Amino acid sequence: MRRGIYVGRFQPFHNGHLYVIKEVLEKVDELIIVIGSAQYSHELDNPFTAGERIAMVRSALEEAKIPSSRYWIIPIQDAPSHMVWVAQVEGFTPPFDIVFSNEPLTRRLFTEKGYKVEGIPLYKRGVYSATDIRRLMVNGGEWEEALPPSVCKVIEEIEGVKRLKDLSKSDKTDP
Amino acid sequence: MRRGIYVGRFQPFHNGHLYVIKEVLEKVDELIIVIGSAQYSHELDNPFTAGERIAMVRSALEEAKIPSSRYWIIPIQDAPSHMVWVAQVEGFTPPFDIVFSNEPLTRRLFTEKGYKVEGIPLYKRGVYSATDIRRLMVNGGEWEEALPPSVCKVIEEIEGVKRLKDLSKSDKTDP
Amino acid sequence: MRRGIYVGRFQPFHNGHLYVIKEVLEKVDELIIVIGSAQYSHELDNPFTAGERIAMVRSALEEAKIPSSRYWIIPIQDAPSHMVWVAQVEGFTPPFDIVFSNEPLTRRLFTEKGYKVEGIPLYKRGVYSATDIRRLMVNGGEWEEALPPSVCKVIEEIEGVKRLKDLSKSDKTDP
Amino acid sequence: MRRGIYVGRFQPFHNGHLYVIKEVLEKVDELIIVIGSAQYSHELDNPFTAGERIAMVRSALEEAKIPSSRYWIIPIQDAPSHMVWVAQVEGFTPPFDIVFSNEPLTRRLFTEKGYKVEGIPLYKRGVYSATDIRRLMVNGGEWEEALPPSVCKVIEEIEGVKRLKDLSKSDKTDP
Amino acid sequence: MRRGIYVGRFQPFHNGHLYVIKEVLEKVDELIIVIGSAQYSHELDNPFTAGERIAMVRSALEEAKIPSSRYWIIPIQDAPSHMVWVAQVEGFTPPFDIVFSNEPLTRRLFTEKGYKVEGIPLYKRGVYSATDIRRLMVNGGEWEEALPPSVCKVIEEIEGVKRLKDLSKSDKTDP
Amino acid sequence: MRRGIYVGRFQPFHNGHLYVIKEVLEKVDELIIVIGSAQYSHELDNPFTAGERIAMVRSALEEAKIPSSRYWIIPIQDAPSHMVWVAQVEGFTPPFDIVFSNEPLTRRLFTEKGYKVEGIPLYKRGVYSATDIRRLMVNGGEWEEALPPSVCKVIEEIEGVKRLKDLSKSDKTDP
Repeated sequence: MRRGIYVGRFQPFHNGHLYVIKEVLEKVDELIIVIGSAQYSHELDNPFTAGERIAMVRSALEEAKIPSSRYWIIPIQDAPSHMVWVAQVEGFTPPFDIVFSNEPLTRRLFTEKGYKVEGIPLYKRGVYSATDIRRLMVNGGEWEEALPPSVCKVIEEIEGVKRLKDLSKSDKTDP
Repeated sequence: MRRGIYVGRFQPFHNGHLYVIKEVLEKVDELIIVIGSAQYSHELDNPFTAGERIAMVRSALEEAKIPSSRYWIIPIQDAPSHMVWVAQVEGFTPPFDIVFSNEPLTRRLFTEKGYKVEGIPLYKRGVYSATDIRRLMVNGGEWEEALPPSVCKVIEEIEGVKRLKDLSKSDKTDP
Repeated sequence: MRRGIYVGRFQPFHNGHLYVIKEVLEKVDELIIVIGSAQYSHELDNPFTAGERIAMVRSALEEAKIPSSRYWIIPIQDAPSHMVWVAQVEGFTPPFDIVFSNEPLTRRLFTEKGYKVEGIPLYKRGVYSATDIRRLMVNGGEWEEALPPSVCKVIEEIEGVKRLKDLSKSDKTDP
Repeated sequence: MRRGIYVGRFQPFHNGHLYVIKEVLEKVDELIIVIGSAQYSHELDNPFTAGERIAMVRSALEEAKIPSSRYWIIPIQDAPSHMVWVAQVEGFTPPFDIVFSNEPLTRRLFTEKGYKVEGIPLYKRGVYSATDIRRLMVNGGEWEEALPPSVCKVIEEIEGVKRLKDLSKSDKTDP
Repeated sequence: MRRGIYVGRFQPFHNGHLYVIKEVLEKVDELIIVIGSAQYSHELDNPFTAGERIAMVRSALEEAKIPSSRYWIIPIQDAPSHMVWVAQVEGFTPPFDIVFSNEPLTRRLFTEKGYKVEGIPLYKRGVYSATDIRRLMVNGGEWEEALPPSVCKVIEEIEGVKRLKDLSKSDKTDP
Repeated sequence: MRRGIYVGRFQPFHNGHLYVIKEVLEKVDELIIVIGSAQYSHELDNPFTAGERIAMVRSALEEAKIPSSRYWIIPIQDAPSHMVWVAQVEGFTPPFDIVFSNEPLTRRLFTEKGYKVEGIPLYKRGVYSATDIRRLMVNGGEWEEALPPSVCKVIEEIEGVKRLKDLSKSDKTDP
């Protein structure tokens, strides 16, 4: 049995993430999907809570009919130091053989601890960037098509776009 | 849709926990199973990591043929203060309507935040106490029958009994 | 101008504390009353939140007609290390000249940082112990006479006795 | 009885803050004034300690002859996650009915927890910005008129301007 | 080059510790001496600060004429979770090949991360227990002979015995 | 006996640092060299762990034939608040009389706690800037001559340049 790990912030989860998961599941039997920086929420760059992001990933994978026995969804907070982050991930997950990541720090930290690290395939780079999607949400653009319908529904239920818009209203003072 | 929450440390997950989950699933559509005190491990009272406990719960529920769409398994660390613990749980979970717990602090904290709290049914109290099970593991007693077979397998794979026995060896000095 | 400091947990604030404050105010112009271990609440030994304890002290001192210009009420959390605790207190308070305490650790820490430390007068020792008062609250004894009436009112408003009784209900298992 | 809450960093407390407090006290019986980000000090954007800021607010409100029974001054540290911040505020304060804030994050967090949130009236916007006042302190401009005289006295006593100027001296190297 | 690691709290450093270090230095070229639980001080079980303990170890090893090139003295705080403690130690030390410890948790944690762990030789067990030495300090017994003379001098300079005696004075109340 | 303290991040330790230490040792009998921000590593601005930086300083001072009895190398993490940082340093070090620093915050914090603070002599400013050295490492420039040969060897052993280059590879997306 071969198990991989894929770390993301998923702010929000979009079609690019789903594409990666499908591709990576061709290579491993099970995939651990880590909701990283789990403690952050209600920031322009991190609008959604860990709970909301778990709901997004879960509903998207159900919708995509990926059997639940093939993935684990686990939220993990940032560690107090980079030097202990891999150990923290190990403590919150079942054992894994391979790490899928393009993020330089993630790659480096796992590599130094002796893990095999592979890059992830990017699908339609640019169309599916979480930064762009958040910007579209704030500015009123078309963001829905970049997300699985079930994730759009989660965001609607929590009034996620209103939250982002509210957070973006600077009061332009330090009163 | 009615969603409940059930918080435990699951050190380890045993038949009593499984019984509770089955009973409670009669009352709600979905159940959030929180792996509490997720940061603890390698202590006599908290021998297993969050990752190991997630593996236990997951394998037990699969073995019991409970559809994965009906439960969420989410590890949550202790909060720095009791006063923020419920808010932390809310931030790591999807919304829920009812809390199942017999633990006085858990009951009290959720009650004060306005949640409906119900007691959990205890099955064969005494036979299925995690404290007793850990003691049997250390002393070489018969603990396997108190656990679902799939959980025994997880514990075997991680050499959990050896870990507990090692941790119990006091060096009887403060050198 | 001479300013003193008096640190307590005030779980709950009682007549003994009030007596100390009155006595000490004979010796200084202003007194800083620190609500210590401010982060704790909802424990048998620390049932009340910082906010609730501030309300207790404030209402008791108003009731006692002590002019508000003569005291400061400031909640302070425990420091991560004893070695930085005095510095943390200094950072949350205005400057002070003298420390009133009978608590050995508090006395020692302030002494090592060069502060003058004086013992506090204990009034009717034993009658006014917070530990005893909490025990009376749990067991249904007569605790009201040990507290200023205004503090009793605060505790009544927050249903403090019910909280303590709830917290004391052990479920007698580690399920 | 109607109680409001007003959160600020007060780096430093100035006439704009005093104006807000007076206006808001027309609408509520009591106001909780939270000294936010209490743990920060000795930074260009956060030069003053919690203790110093408490002293500023207290002296300004005494000077303005606002009865002390009408306000509470409570320092609160930032929470480890936004998701628990409102709960932390609730734990350090007496109960409140209404939140006064123009700050988007504060507004959003309290709104999501079900609180009524109202904007604060800004007086002479631009004249009374803490950012500008700190800049004037560093550059030697006229900052005193923007602050209540009693706050100027607190800053003088702690040599606050010298601290700011010292902190602004970059050594222009990463030696 | 072969490098070992030896973790202790050294509250205080005594002849038994010195004996261990000498014995262990027969087996390795260099020894990393970790001052564990570095954040604790001013407690009956942890009376001395990290700085004081570094001074003790350093002076004892100089007195014993062990070349400084053969050892490293490094203070390390407890980790937030046992699961990351070894990674934290790795981040504060140069690489090492072998761990010397009799402490069950330390042995277990390093073993699980793949390190070779060896027991330490105990010299005159019972005579050289830090717990006993602290008790003698509080009760006025003969503790000096259990410590290297240079460590006695460090303790004298910081008035360590007075600190311990002060800390042991219970005020026997929860006022 | 006169003891000084010198705080640096030493990312990495270079000839400028060595020059300062030699100069300062003319003025004091012993020097405490604090490895500051010890918890950081694996960032572009803080690439090296505390353990790696201790190894750099130690090897450089041995190479420079400075007697080990004249210096202490102590790693210290950032404090949770600036207000407690000096107290934390005091808790991790032996007593000291004088602080050597050009860093405005360090100077200010020690000055406020009553310490004598002196500037450090800068040697060939610009040639020996850690920021520049890290940039040269990333871009493939000549950085070795700015560092003591023994430090170059440490960096080579840990493949430090490769780490920096890896960390600098932005994936240019927020996937």
